[in-house]
This record gives sequence, structure tokens and C-alpha cells, in this order.
Amino acid sequence: MISKLIAEIKKKDAPVVVGLDPQLAFIPKQILDKYYKEMDYTLEAVSEAIYEYNVGLMDAVADLVPAVKPQIAMYENFGIPGLQAFKKTVDYAHKKGLVVIGDIKRGDIGSTSTAYAVGHIGKVDIKDENGNVNTVFPFDEDIVTVNPYLGSDGVKPFIDVCNQTDRGIFVLVKTSNPSSGEFQDQEIVVGDGATRPLYEIVAEKVNEWGQDSMDGDYSNVGAVVGATYPEMGIALRKLMPKTYILVPGYGAQGGSGKDLKGFFNEDGLGAIINSSRGIIAAYKNEKYASFGAEGYADAARKATEDMLQDIRENI
Amino acid sequence: MISKLIAEIKKKDAPVVVGLDPQLAFIPKQILDKYYKEMDYTLEAVSEAIYEYNVGLMDAVADLVPAVKPQIAMYENFGIPGLQAFKKTVDYAHKKGLVVIGDIKRGDIGSTSTAYAVGHIGKVDIKDENGNVNTVFPFDEDIVTVNPYLGSDGVKPFIDVCNQTDRGIFVLVKTSNPSSGEFQDQEIVVGDGATRPLYEIVAEKVNEWGQDSMDGDYSNVGAVVGATYPEMGIALRKLMPKTYILVPGYGAQGGSGKDLKGFFNEDGLGAIINSSRGIIAAYKNEKYASFGAEGYADAARKATEDMLQDIRENI
Repeated sequence: MISKLIAEIKKKDAPVVVGLDPQLAFIPKQILDKYYKEMDYTLEAVSEAIYEYNVGLMDAVADLVPAVKPQIAMYENFGIPGLQAFKKTVDYAHKKGLVVIGDIKRGDIGSTSTAYAVGHIGKVDIKDENGNVNTVFPFDEDIVTVNPYLGSDGVKPFIDVCNQTDRGIFVLVKTSNPSSGEFQDQEIVVGDGATRPLYEIVAEKVNEWGQDSMDGDYSNVGAVVGATYPEMGIALRKLMPKTYILVPGYGAQGGSGKDLKGFFNEDGLGAIINSSRGIIAAYKNEKYASFGAEGYADAARKATEDMLQDIRENI
Repeated sequence: MISKLIAEIKKKDAPVVVGLDPQLAFIPKQILDKYYKEMDYTLEAVSEAIYEYNVGLMDAVADLVPAVKPQIAMYENFGIPGLQAFKKTVDYAHKKGLVVIGDIKRGDIGSTSTAYAVGHIGKVDIKDENGNVNTVFPFDEDIVTVNPYLGSDGVKPFIDVCNQTDRGIFVLVKTSNPSSGEFQDQEIVVGDGATRPLYEIVAEKVNEWGQDSMDGDYSNVGAVVGATYPEMGIALRKLMPKTYILVPGYGAQGGSGKDLKGFFNEDGLGAIINSSRGIIAAYKNEKYASFGAEGYADAARKATEDMLQDIRENI
């Protein structure tokens, strides 16, 4: 899978992923009102509106970027109807030729992690009485994010499923939020009085976990490192040379192009930068306000072009 | 919410929760075959079978235990239909008077954590043009499990939602799996050459996070500590005196009644022990095999009674 993502990044000269993280406040009023009128003030109406909003966004950026990253929390927020919009978004992205990174941050142990992995990047084989198999891909993302707090027992089941279906994962190493350091930066005793931060210990595990999942020059086991911590990005890049890094935190969270060079390898590859609200809610930003709510998709396209220019100039 | 759970624990003399973690291999053949015949070999058929299986289990144990803990991964495994079975299970549990602990292990940051919290233990307010509000509770669990790896930014939005809706969370501190120590047991430098394991640092944060969410003698912010680590349970009990502890790992994972005393306070409260497959798949265990697949619910009831006896004798 990572080789497919890399091919798309090269083709579009765009190490960028658009985060589809819809919030009620982002959805243009004309879309919401249409579905409220049809379906009343319900989760179903909100979810149909989210899907239409996402389709407009994907139509606007699909030729510019290799991938989208729907954040499942923003759909789970609206219960089953919301998750139906998530699933339809995944399917539409595939129709547009986009790689889908499901930002699900799941993590559990053993058969439970396997169940998450099967649901999102695997397949369910249902056998009939004659031994014939009906194979179904439940959510069918290409890559998902994984939380490592439970250790190898929690992560390896995801990797096993990746290896069966040629999919990928990005494991959280150092997240972009202000309090990510509370646990991730704790200094760990590694012997002889030396210490290292926890995120480096996690990074070494990611490197190790990925060794049996190579797909070309990079592994299908990637990492998440926030744009908001560029020095750590440089150190982590070196610790995980064959690991693709998903970099959130660009734009709204404070990261900018000049912070990003260190996340890339000398081959110009190795990282993909995410922007969510900076693109999908661009029409609410003063800079793109002239597009108006009707032009939310064009605003998103312009914001994507501006982001691509910033990234291309800096890496 | 924790006061409601405690009242139910006292009423039933049962600090026990039944984990509803359905796997295809656990569902009795007669139930699966019925839905395969009706709905073909589909995710929909599997999901209807899961729901019927759960209803049988809940009917069998509802007078014995205060709560059930559906593990959402086992439903997400089967995509949208699986999650519909999850939601129906939550609703049926409420009809039976059971507290529902959604084992979702979610964790993200800021507005994204808020979205998870709203979806599972919160409410969505959809405003019409006149300012009237339609309030919907999307998944409507009572308590959910939360992963702390992202720090306070990730956990506090859950607590804010808890405080609005009188719900609860259990934060992962020390999980029951063999490799939980890989990161959770790492020795952290705390100054002057002293060190402490990471899970204790997390426990102190849980204690601190819970202080503004007291509900009677305990906080609505609880912790998860595995039965498989009884010595750590004793230490963590003391570090988090007002924190309810959800204890997985009993039975199939190796924990037994005699390991559990240290998880409780002197008031006989403070912990609730989970068993999943030891109860829901009891009919597959040699000890309860005489019940047969048709008697899976009676087997589950007997296994619950045996577990209650083991726990009551030991705490």
C-alpha cells in the first residue's frame, strides 16, 4: 500500500493529505438546510449533509492530492447515520482514485485488535454450509492510524491484517497537541544513567514492527509525528529511516512549511502532511472569504494549492 | 453515574461486569443458521445473530450483575451492520436495567475527543431555524473506556461531556495483556535519581482529572487495571483512592478471585471485575459443555454464578 501512496504523491507532486473532519459549524448552511427540509432535524439529515459536503470537497481536490484522511470521530459523533456517511465517504474517495487514511486511532489487544483491523483494513470471510466463502470488506480504508499504548500485542494484529490485504498503518509516536508531552516526552531510564523520551522508545518499536512489512523502499507500518514539534521530527526521521511519517498539525494547529523539511528523507519522500480545517473550512477564513459558503469547495481547492506551494518551496 | 453503578453493585452483591465481546466462533450455530437462511451469508445476517445472542445472554444474567461491557471492536469488525447490533445491544441493556460500559478505548485531541465523547456518552443538539433544539443521544452508553496516550488534551474533553450528562469514563492505566509493560512499565525519571513506572504517572493524572467529577464517594473518572497484575493493582489502588477500577483479565486471561482483593478499598468497593468469553462462551468450556449450544445462555448464567462465588469468597 505505501508504494501506491508514494506513486500518487510523486504523480501529483503533493506530499499532502486533506483531512475530512466535518463539524456542524463547517457545513455550509445551504447544504444543511436542504437536508433538514427533507429529513427534519435529525442525525440522518446531518449525516447526508456531511456526505454532500465531503463529495464537494473531494471533487475539488482529487486531482491535486493523493489522499484524504477522514477523522472517524467526527462521524461517530452522529452515531450510526454518521458512520454511514463515513463509509460512503471512503467509497467515494476510492471512486475518485484517492488513497484513504482512516484516522481511527484504534488500539486494543489480541483478538480485539484483530477485530478492529478486520473491520477497517481487512476482510470478513463468511462460510456457507458447502464451504463456499462470501468475502466482505466492512469499512475498506487503505491505511489506518493506531494507538500504541497497549504494546506489541495491540499493534501486531493490525500488521498481520496489513500483510494479508496489502494495507498500511500509521502508529502514533508523537502527537501534535500541546499536552502530548505529558506522557510521550517522559524521560525513560535506558541503563547507565542514560535516558530517552518515551516517544523515541515507541519510534524504535515502530521501526522494528515495520521490518517484515516492506513495500518498496518504505514499510507499510508508518508513524504519526506532529508538525508542531519539528526538532523531534528531525530526530524521529533518523530513528525510523524506512518509516513513512504522517504529519498532522499543519495550518490551524500552528505548523508551517518551513518546519517540515526535517520530516522528509533526502529522497524527498518519507512524509505526508495533513491539513484539515485549513482546507475544508477555508471559506470561513478571512483569506478565502470572498468564495462565500456557496463556493466552499473552490475555497478548499485554492487553500490546497496555497498549501502545496508552501510545502514545495520548503522541502 | 458512578453512584448509580455502585448502587447496582451493592443491590446485587456483584462487583462484576459481563463483557459482551461476540466472535463468530462463539455464536451458536442454530442462531447463525437462522439468519443466514433469512438474509444470506452477509454482514447483516451475522449482526442480527450477534444481537439475538446478546439478548439471550442479557436475559440470562441481568438479575445477577449490575452492568455489561460490549467491546465495540467486535461489532466494528462487521462494519455498519455490526455497529447497528452494538447500538441495539446498548438499548436492550438499558431496558433490562443494566449499566452499559462501552469498551471503546477512544482517545484523540481537543474537538476530536469531544466528538467521540458526544457520540458515545453525550448528546447532539440540532437547532432548527426558530432556535428550537432537537436533542439526540447517538450511542448512549453510560460509561466508556478512554486511552490516555495523547495526554490531558485528549482526556479532558471526555470529562467535560461526562460532567454535562452525568456519565463516566475509565482511563487505561495498566492493561491486562502480556506486552502491556513495553511502554506502560517504562521507568520514568522523576528527579533526584528516583524513577517511577509510567503507569503510576498516568494513575496520578487520573486521580487529578477525577477531582472535579466526584459523584458520592467516588469519581466519575475511573481507571482500567488488569487482573493479571495484582501487585500493581495494590499500588494503584492506593495511588487513586477515589477512583473506581475496571479490572479486565479475569478468567480466560488468567486472573482469578484470589488476585483481586488488592483492587478493592476497605469499604469493599472501588473495583468491578470483567469477564467476557469465560461467561459468554461458557458452553464451549468443558466445565459447562453439558448445556450445549442450545443452552448457551444457561451456561452463561451458571458461569456468572460461579464467578460471583469466587469473587465473594475472595474479597
